[in-house]
Amino acid sequence: MRGLYFDGALQLRHDLPEPQLRADEALIGLRLAGICHTDLELTRGYMGFTGVLGHEFVGELLTDHGSFAAGTRVVGEINVACGVCDFCGADVPSQCRNRVTLGIDRYDGVFAERFRLPVRNLYAVPETVSDEAAVFVEPLAAALQIPALAPISPSERVVVIGAGKLGLLVAQVLRLLGCELIVVARQVRPISLLEKWRISYVDARRTDWLDRIGRKSAHVVVDCTGNAEGFAHALEVVRPRGTIVLKSTYSSLPSANLTRVVVDEVKVIGSRCGPFGAAIRLLENKLVDVDSMIEAVYPLADSLAAFDHASSSGVLKVLLHP
Amino acid sequence: MRGLYFDGALQLRHDLPEPQLRADEALIGLRLAGICHTDLELTRGYMGFTGVLGHEFVGELLTDHGSFAAGTRVVGEINVACGVCDFCGADVPSQCRNRVTLGIDRYDGVFAERFRLPVRNLYAVPETVSDEAAVFVEPLAAALQIPALAPISPSERVVVIGAGKLGLLVAQVLRLLGCELIVVARQVRPISLLEKWRISYVDARRTDWLDRIGRKSAHVVVDCTGNAEGFAHALEVVRPRGTIVLKSTYSSLPSANLTRVVVDEVKVIGSRCGPFGAAIRLLENKLVDVDSMIEAVYPLADSLAAFDHASSSGVLKVLLHP
Repeated sequence: MRGLYFDGALQLRHDLPEPQLRADEALIGLRLAGICHTDLELTRGYMGFTGVLGHEFVGELLTDHGSFAAGTRVVGEINVACGVCDFCGADVPSQCRNRVTLGIDRYDGVFAERFRLPVRNLYAVPETVSDEAAVFVEPLAAALQIPALAPISPSERVVVIGAGKLGLLVAQVLRLLGCELIVVARQVRPISLLEKWRISYVDARRTDWLDRIGRKSAHVVVDCTGNAEGFAHALEVVRPRGTIVLKSTYSSLPSANLTRVVVDEVKVIGSRCGPFGAAIRLLENKLVDVDSMIEAVYPLADSLAAFDHASSSGVLKVLLHP
Repeated sequence: MRGLYFDGALQLRHDLPEPQLRADEALIGLRLAGICHTDLELTRGYMGFTGVLGHEFVGELLTDHGSFAAGTRVVGEINVACGVCDFCGADVPSQCRNRVTLGIDRYDGVFAERFRLPVRNLYAVPETVSDEAAVFVEPLAAALQIPALAPISPSERVVVIGAGKLGLLVAQVLRLLGCELIVVARQVRPISLLEKWRISYVDARRTDWLDRIGRKSAHVVVDCTGNAEGFAHALEVVRPRGTIVLKSTYSSLPSANLTRVVVDEVKVIGSRCGPFGAAIRLLENKLVDVDSMIEAVYPLADSLAAFDHASSSGVLKVLLHP
């Protein structure tokens, strides 16, 4: 079958073996997949991954599986957990100590015609949610992990630094909380979307953007930049006793002003995969606009061109269909 | 009057002017003062401080002040707050936006025969608490700020990295919570105290100390080292979804593995000054042994020698009397 394979080099292959299922796994046919920042990082060596890339998907079951009939449209959680460690026992499989991860860590991903995932990882997609919306469930769930780990009060001032694919989803999720929200953006496309959604922003190309937000003014700052400068800016903007949420992986070991964390008694919270059920509900209720975030759709056969496109600066979501 | 003054160079002076009191301030005569790691940092340029050093003290009121009669023994909070900013309004004067800080930031300290502090900062010392114990109230309160900001359950595994003056107080406070406590120590004196107090420790001079504690095993890790290596070790020891408490200021901008914070969804909490009332209660109830932590007592006249002594590696608390 056809798929996008990485083993140090990114290759479109037509001879991939069919997925070999374990008893608890379902065979899924791809309908639509999304290219994520993490996929780009993986092709630069992150995690030392070898295999089929891809973890954002909507697919359809190719056989019956208990309550799921063949043909059911599904999305799925990316952590393949052991079911027996302390975190699995505490119902936190996303932090399973023995996990492998779909398209990221020792488990083939979804940029292929067919792939596998444990049935327990799957969620049926409601009829009213299109494939184009459902493919955003995984990153939208990751955005929802922010209020899951760092409760945000409706009267708080919240700053999101970085308005890429993830930052825009985070901004849309936090807007729903009623909090005073400001996004730091620097690209034309995200800025036009923020204007469309009536979300306040400051243009990071202005030299005075930090003062426009107000130093030490935010109860919560979410760093969606993935670079050391983003964390340094978050420390400038967060108020004493405030919270910085780290949302993306960092490509190097950034220097961090930990003394500032101590003196201002700041809380820094890392946040990763989130609740799929909540993400599906927001899409079902049309509370989040993901359609406007689609940059382009490519067939798997053109997935190398799709990766090139997705790597360009300021580009939003690039999708793949089989 | 006599005092220890810093203006780029540390000087014992005999010609210091008497403190000039504002209406809300009390004049206090020094009984005993403690030299803290922060004092040593200040003499290396931290905060750009100029003035009389010192912020750990027990003194006596030299005049009547409302409910406090002259002669009352007092300790005092070090943050001199404005009383009008949002943090003062929220009863968090320790994070006052306009604060100055006793012996640290634009406010003369206590290494002098007499000094001043707002009456509202003062706490009377109970009769049963000796001067030698009362002088530890400020750092003991700082240790108590850990459970104040990062609630610790009695069944959790807690690791304290660093067993200097602050680390030993932190260990004694956390032992009272009933949690499974392990201290990482490397000096002979602290290790003998930990043995005396029956607090578990691992000797950081052993190459396998990380494995002896267990990687990713601790619910809470407190970094009392003040160096980048301490934070890196804390990240090795903390379990996913666990908490790292930063307790000391860092002399440089350490590199920090923020990706690890994200992937393991770790919480990092900075923690500074703490509750004086609680510290006094612990001393009154003799639940903490501070007497064993006194290394030496010098007169103010020998305070330069006292600083030299306090700067040596592995030395515990050095005190000054007038």
